[in-house]
Amino acid sequence: MSVPPELSALRASIDNLDAALVHLLAERFRCTQRVGHLKHELGLPAADPVREEQQLARLRVLASDAGLDPVFAEKVLGFIIAEVIRNHGIIAEGAAVGSADEA
Amino acid sequence: MSVPPELSALRASIDNLDAALVHLLAERFRCTQRVGHLKHELGLPAADPVREEQQLARLRVLASDAGLDPVFAEKVLGFIIAEVIRNHGIIAEGAAVGSADEA
Repeated sequence: MSVPPELSALRASIDNLDAALVHLLAERFRCTQRVGHLKHELGLPAADPVREEQQLARLRVLASDAGLDPVFAEKVLGFIIAEVIRNHGIIAEGAAVGSADEA
Repeated sequence: MSVPPELSALRASIDNLDAALVHLLAERFRCTQRVGHLKHELGLPAADPVREEQQLARLRVLASDAGLDPVFAEKVLGFIIAEVIRNHGIIAEGAAVGSADEA
């Protein structure tokens, strides 16, 4: 089945945006990995609920300004943070307990 | 409690990346909303499993090239797609059934 040209054009834009999202996520993950190792070195607590609440509050404002549903944005970032914490947990199993949870 | 400078610097990078992610998500959502309306106008089926599988296969390659865990990338995009479909479902309730599910 042939794809209508306008749909094809929109899909090309979505594909470009997804490629950009993947590269930003890759860079974000590099940063959080370095945070995890740094906190382990400094003996800092793994989780920081105050920081996390600041991140989500800022995100809601940014999303609203960008015309994105703030609830949707918060869910997506919340999901990313949860995955990062989970992945850090896997990494930390080889090092020390509670060393790398910042998201 | 004061934040160590290196941690503070990493957090500033994470905040910048999150702002970029929010804006990309906002633009992606604009595209998928237009796809939803277009498919409704053209009477095309809401879901396209072949397209979705192509998206995820491409994403795995991109993630791997960018040094991002492909499983993590697929989970994040899968989550975004599921949320888009859910949001489209809410929008479609006011229009016609099955009009706007492309993600």
